[in-house]
Amino acid sequence: MDKIIKVFAAASVSNVGPGFDIFGYALNDIGDTITMSKRTDSAIDISCPGFNLPTNPNENVAGVALQAMLDRLESMQGFNLAISKNVLPGSGLGSSASSAAAAVFGANELLGNPFTKTELVEFAMAGEALVSGKPHADNVAPSLLGGFVLVRSYEPLDVAKLQYPKELITVIIHPQIEVKTSYAKEILPKEIPLALAVKQWGNIAGLVSGLATSNFDLIRNSLKDVIIEPVRSHLIPGFYDLQNIALTNGALGCSISGSGPSVFALCVGEEIAEKIETGFGSVYDKLEIDYKIYRSFINDEGTKLIS
Amino acid sequence: MDKIIKVFAAASVSNVGPGFDIFGYALNDIGDTITMSKRTDSAIDISCPGFNLPTNPNENVAGVALQAMLDRLESMQGFNLAISKNVLPGSGLGSSASSAAAAVFGANELLGNPFTKTELVEFAMAGEALVSGKPHADNVAPSLLGGFVLVRSYEPLDVAKLQYPKELITVIIHPQIEVKTSYAKEILPKEIPLALAVKQWGNIAGLVSGLATSNFDLIRNSLKDVIIEPVRSHLIPGFYDLQNIALTNGALGCSISGSGPSVFALCVGEEIAEKIETGFGSVYDKLEIDYKIYRSFINDEGTKLIS
Repeated sequence: MDKIIKVFAAASVSNVGPGFDIFGYALNDIGDTITMSKRTDSAIDISCPGFNLPTNPNENVAGVALQAMLDRLESMQGFNLAISKNVLPGSGLGSSASSAAAAVFGANELLGNPFTKTELVEFAMAGEALVSGKPHADNVAPSLLGGFVLVRSYEPLDVAKLQYPKELITVIIHPQIEVKTSYAKEILPKEIPLALAVKQWGNIAGLVSGLATSNFDLIRNSLKDVIIEPVRSHLIPGFYDLQNIALTNGALGCSISGSGPSVFALCVGEEIAEKIETGFGSVYDKLEIDYKIYRSFINDEGTKLIS
Repeated sequence: MDKIIKVFAAASVSNVGPGFDIFGYALNDIGDTITMSKRTDSAIDISCPGFNLPTNPNENVAGVALQAMLDRLESMQGFNLAISKNVLPGSGLGSSASSAAAAVFGANELLGNPFTKTELVEFAMAGEALVSGKPHADNVAPSLLGGFVLVRSYEPLDVAKLQYPKELITVIIHPQIEVKTSYAKEILPKEIPLALAVKQWGNIAGLVSGLATSNFDLIRNSLKDVIIEPVRSHLIPGFYDLQNIALTNGALGCSISGSGPSVFALCVGEEIAEKIETGFGSVYDKLEIDYKIYRSFINDEGTKLIS
């Protein structure tokens, strides 16, 4: 009988303050697990128990990502995929990206690793294109590669792992509400004032420098989004209360994860993380909105084989 | 008799590829020298032999910068300033910024250093405001502090020295033509497409990360300006020939210094720098345009006392 493997691919926070469409970091222990094996025929069989997701491989992110990889190899190999999700789709935490990352990583493993992890990013992006209409890398790249990732360019695709202080902790709150990604995209400005763009790129440069040199004051001053957050924050109930409670409890920064509705904070120290968790929860308790909370160091390893 | 001091303040390259209004680095040995002493009255006496610059302190960048500092101190102290310039005003190399930097540094020295170098940036900016209508820091900050500088924010003013590989060499060509700074500002777009801004900030993040980690491939890929250069390059004869010859000879990048007309390249290795110098010269020899060429490591020290 052919080998059965289990792959874990992490959920991720993308955008990360000023870095709309270019930054993302991966989480620990929060993400998708795929059990995967080769088939004797060319079919791609997908199951995802408990989730109402398409199992037709042409309509499923994992299937589309996997097919992009097989097409490049000109391979007719079939696979069985059983996806176990622990982050809801539509959370803003790269749920679909982690399925896509796990699928291509697993197939690569079962085929004897014809590709590097970095090369897999492109295939996983094909899965992302299915859900968002545009091939994004700011979730699949951190999910696959781990760490704090910069997507510098799409044409050509150029992805770099940034240096960052290993003691960073992220606290995330996911309100159990639906924000349509398509609407969150629709409301983005097509044009922005040059002066505002300059403000944003000052913060981007400050954030990268602060991360590289563990300059926490610089990180704190730079972790601000003056372009996207003011537009999307209205989609998230109590957003400014969350941000305010995180910052007053010592967070380095707090903004929207992906296109929301999840909100992330970054901080240093378990004590501060604890206070942010409690603060986050109190905001939604008061608003009577259900939520999930996650706490994690940044996952530096990325997608991995767990058995 | 009162002490007479000599201060050197470097010229500088600002904008630096994608970093419009936020990046600048200082040069070695190229800049202004000011000979300065305290007076027994409250007058500010400025001379600048060989240059047709205003000597009225309210119309001279050094005078205005100095006055901003004295105002903060509520001081009526007068000074004599003899400015010796070796970069022409209007070069795009922060000529006025180096005068302003030298003046406030010198006065600070003569008054027993009531301010840190970083605190002096704000006063020198007042001089910049006189020439450009807006208080800029991307020349005065590198000129004063040295190194590769990020101006992260203006309100509040926040300036950070970036890490960079010490082996970087810059080659600069200054065509002896006039580009009105006011016109170079006028033609800038007021609004830019969000997609283009995202491209630019990907490159900004890549450049800062590449500089911090001495990743020369990343620096090379990131040292690109997709927003300002396409608009201003038309003001500089032969700009794309200069850029092309620099890149084909091994430059990491080549773009406009400040608002032009000077053009800078960054590279590693004296041999490559030599080739870029020769290449730059050949472009303007062919076009029969007079020029000056400078070559320098990045000046990490900034404004200094020389006697």
